[in-house]
Amino acid sequence: MVPFTVTVLGNGSAVPTSFQKPSSQLVTYGSKRFMVDCGEGTQMQMITYKTGHRHIDHIFISHLHGDHFFGLIGFLNTLHLYGRKQPLHIYAVKELKKVVELQLEVSNSNLSYPLMFHFLGSSFQEPLYDDKNIEIFHFPLNHRITTYGFIFREKPGERKLKKSFIEEFHPSIEQMHAVKSGRDFISKAGETIANKEITIDPIPPRSCAYCSDTAYFEEVIPYIKNVNLLYHEATFDNSQQMLAKEKFHSTAAQAATIAKKAKAGKLLLGHFSARFKERTHLLEEAKEIFLEITLSVEGESYEV
Amino acid sequence: MVPFTVTVLGNGSAVPTSFQKPSSQLVTYGSKRFMVDCGEGTQMQMITYKTGHRHIDHIFISHLHGDHFFGLIGFLNTLHLYGRKQPLHIYAVKELKKVVELQLEVSNSNLSYPLMFHFLGSSFQEPLYDDKNIEIFHFPLNHRITTYGFIFREKPGERKLKKSFIEEFHPSIEQMHAVKSGRDFISKAGETIANKEITIDPIPPRSCAYCSDTAYFEEVIPYIKNVNLLYHEATFDNSQQMLAKEKFHSTAAQAATIAKKAKAGKLLLGHFSARFKERTHLLEEAKEIFLEITLSVEGESYEV
Repeated sequence: MVPFTVTVLGNGSAVPTSFQKPSSQLVTYGSKRFMVDCGEGTQMQMITYKTGHRHIDHIFISHLHGDHFFGLIGFLNTLHLYGRKQPLHIYAVKELKKVVELQLEVSNSNLSYPLMFHFLGSSFQEPLYDDKNIEIFHFPLNHRITTYGFIFREKPGERKLKKSFIEEFHPSIEQMHAVKSGRDFISKAGETIANKEITIDPIPPRSCAYCSDTAYFEEVIPYIKNVNLLYHEATFDNSQQMLAKEKFHSTAAQAATIAKKAKAGKLLLGHFSARFKERTHLLEEAKEIFLEITLSVEGESYEV
Repeated sequence: MVPFTVTVLGNGSAVPTSFQKPSSQLVTYGSKRFMVDCGEGTQMQMITYKTGHRHIDHIFISHLHGDHFFGLIGFLNTLHLYGRKQPLHIYAVKELKKVVELQLEVSNSNLSYPLMFHFLGSSFQEPLYDDKNIEIFHFPLNHRITTYGFIFREKPGERKLKKSFIEEFHPSIEQMHAVKSGRDFISKAGETIANKEITIDPIPPRSCAYCSDTAYFEEVIPYIKNVNLLYHEATFDNSQQMLAKEKFHSTAAQAATIAKKAKAGKLLLGHFSARFKERTHLLEEAKEIFLEITLSVEGESYEV
């Protein structure tokens, strides 16, 4: 199986502290890495956790609150100083382009590489990114300003050939490809063998989603249905439900409710309030609703 | 004596590494603290070194290369989230105001405190800041974009009364104030006693200056003449003189030459290239020219 992981670089909300940094994570699929959000100090977190900065060609910014993008310009600048040449794609609301361009203009900088902006919000059905292995979509969240979640979907693999089929029919390479792609097989004797008789299902495609920042918002469920790994914000605890509503954030239990209703495989909690150095109670509250939950830890990678 | 120190928060150039962060320092005079430059992650450095963020009402930004100001918006945002009320003054080129305002606009933020911009470049003779104890001036440096240095000058203290004067003449409180301020004394017998006979010189006023980023630039010398503590950039070593010239930066030896010609008390080197994890040779090269030199260390405070 192709490695597919989420590495949390920052899982704090709003204000950095000694124990949590602003939002950022890297989604790794094989040799490709995608950055999601880039709070201040993300590049320092990458140094601390020795992630390197290679193979990142796509950066997704959920919204323009500072704790989700203030580190972007510094990271772009560092890539420039390292002499990057290949294009870098940024997916965000259109206002981010103005911010980045103004910052480059005042510092009299011409980046060493092309920066390509892709504006969010036009279509949630069309992938933002699409290659032979993976597709990335965005969907609306419910926060104080326009905010989007992201879902990374592995494409279904080829069907697997049964050993007995190869032994019995000695198919050519072309025939094997055809059968793997789902076609029936016609034997030398002219007999049609149904695909399902000679293949087994591929490993089910995996997916991970990112929901931060958002109030409790059931409208996300269709977009993330059956996701394997859901990262959902859990800024507040059960005692702060009013505060969560007012600030358009979620409690840990609300995150668990979304995970349960979306039939997620695992829930990874993050975007913790700076109030909670000790977060055990968030986990306990959330586990009342849904069992497969992990409190994210900065620098840790999680299998999708 | 009023405490007067420089705390180095970041002494790296351009690209952050595991061993150095972008430029920032705090100049402390008594209970007042002034921030000079604010590279990305400055607020995290303040957390690491437990400086707190109180008593900072004035921030001076030397120029708009990212490693000197990308941390500003995050720090301003954090002060806002902490509910700051008192005005904050920023001294920078006028383009910074546009950058900050655009970042606040796109995040739909109204700061909880007034932000007052003061644009650099109009007069080097007028202090940017002036209170009963200290004055702060700026002066031009020679870098790729418009860049300024800063000098913090303690005001001269009052003259000190000789014990013998008090014992002999029993002056009133008013008379003592007049003599301390430099006036001569007229005795009850009508005799004029020259001020210098009855007073001793106050402790000489102290000063510190910040010169980063700049090429070797002798024009700064009149502005920093006799400064007690000079922080000067030392991006490169002797083998990189051409590179220093090309990039409008200084070598450690050039920084020492400026310190020597300016008759500085002490030289504090910083803005080190990411190439130099080991910097002993920078110190050795600089000490060929000027002896009172320290390689700055992040988190350390230096007496002015």
